[in-house]
Amino acid sequence: MGRALASAFLAAGHPTTVWNRTPGRADGLVESGAVETGTAAEAIAASDLVVICVLDHDAVRAVITPHASALKARTLVNLTAGTPDDARATAAWADAHGVDYLDGAIMVPTYLVGGPSTLVLHSGPADLYERHQVTLRAIGGTCVHLGTDPGRAGAHDVALLDIFWTALTGVVHAFALARSEGVTASDLAPYAKGVAALLPDVIDAFAEQVDSGSYPAGGSNLRSAAAIMSHVLEASRSRGVDSTVISAVHDVARRGMAAGYGDDSYAHVAELLRA
Amino acid sequence: MGRALASAFLAAGHPTTVWNRTPGRADGLVESGAVETGTAAEAIAASDLVVICVLDHDAVRAVITPHASALKARTLVNLTAGTPDDARATAAWADAHGVDYLDGAIMVPTYLVGGPSTLVLHSGPADLYERHQVTLRAIGGTCVHLGTDPGRAGAHDVALLDIFWTALTGVVHAFALARSEGVTASDLAPYAKGVAALLPDVIDAFAEQVDSGSYPAGGSNLRSAAAIMSHVLEASRSRGVDSTVISAVHDVARRGMAAGYGDDSYAHVAELLRA
Repeated sequence: MGRALASAFLAAGHPTTVWNRTPGRADGLVESGAVETGTAAEAIAASDLVVICVLDHDAVRAVITPHASALKARTLVNLTAGTPDDARATAAWADAHGVDYLDGAIMVPTYLVGGPSTLVLHSGPADLYERHQVTLRAIGGTCVHLGTDPGRAGAHDVALLDIFWTALTGVVHAFALARSEGVTASDLAPYAKGVAALLPDVIDAFAEQVDSGSYPAGGSNLRSAAAIMSHVLEASRSRGVDSTVISAVHDVARRGMAAGYGDDSYAHVAELLRA
Repeated sequence: MGRALASAFLAAGHPTTVWNRTPGRADGLVESGAVETGTAAEAIAASDLVVICVLDHDAVRAVITPHASALKARTLVNLTAGTPDDARATAAWADAHGVDYLDGAIMVPTYLVGGPSTLVLHSGPADLYERHQVTLRAIGGTCVHLGTDPGRAGAHDVALLDIFWTALTGVVHAFALARSEGVTASDLAPYAKGVAALLPDVIDAFAEQVDSGSYPAGGSNLRSAAAIMSHVLEASRSRGVDSTVISAVHDVARRGMAAGYGDDSYAHVAELLRA
């Protein structure tokens, strides 16, 4: 991701200095005009805007902690994935050391960075975002400032990745279940994409229900969803396909039934989940 | 769903006789030209093509078992949701009683039945499907014959509903998690729809990998997916949001890591799931 970010800044014509914990990762970037440094201190000293993207927030702290004075009065933009509280902790460290801090979450895979479909969510001081947004837009597509709470980008990030990886686990499980019935993944894929195409309308409907606290069932209710989930669970078990995730999903619906939500939209379980 | 199916047949100009276990459910249909009967026997006797759609296959058997001789030499199209084995058991019963049997799965909510976006998957004898497909197309949009195994429509059905309900559980959980961070569902929804829009490309890529048994990581590998899932899990736990489903999802990735798939595409876990 570091390489993709540096490439995007270079492509947008920004003087770019790069440093990686593992030397030699800058091959190609230097040919494109990047300056590679041997130390983090030199990289920090090179620019007013310092962008960091590493494995996790522990790695961020390991990199920045020895360089608090070098970072002072510079802007640190942290694009490392983590929890909202991770972002707030790093922001608190920055605040304590006079470092301007903006958090960010890159919502696309590496190969899309710099392109028009990139989405980057930022949060932190609005004036900082305004000062640097032209530069940050080099990362591509759409950059959004979500608010001043430094954890707000991370809050969106974990929620969206929750959807992405839960859904993909459903996809991979469905491929395994289909295979157990002699249906190949490629047989299923066109219909699976049809299912994915149904999600946006349901997302909008469920969002309105969750925010309003009113859960009319519309086309299908929680009871029928629970019955369907039990079919999936039974079909999985009968073929020896792992059923841990669909079992947990079914249990959510079962708890919704126990709470008296059977005639309501499945979205009502949001209230159980956050209780 | 029975009402929606009858309306679709009537709208297509087919003489339609209706019966429901609960009398009085045909209001409106009779005005549209349907004949309502007081018994299942009369409804079965009225047509060569008998369509049944009830709660589950147990309910199907309760309806048809007393009427084996009336159904003999007629075609029974069963659109009731269930497992592939349910469909095969009902097909075996039909075969033993000289009833022509076609299974089917309606892949859209009730309110879309009869419209252009309806998808109905059928399986069973090809000649039966060919004989009745013009009539069955009244249900709407796209009708597909998937093969002669009567369980094949059900196999697609459970796999696709697996994706749908697992993904929606991810959506509702994400709304709960976002809310715990002060982000409303409506704030999150536009980005959630962006996540849904990423799924088709991943579905195609994962399908090819699962069928070929080759899992190149591309943009992100199982190790990074596992790290992301642990962020979601940690963020959920830290706010007291239920973490049963994301915990089961993370455990799938953890088992993938333990199996040595860390550098591969997440799709490699399909092999663990079906083991």
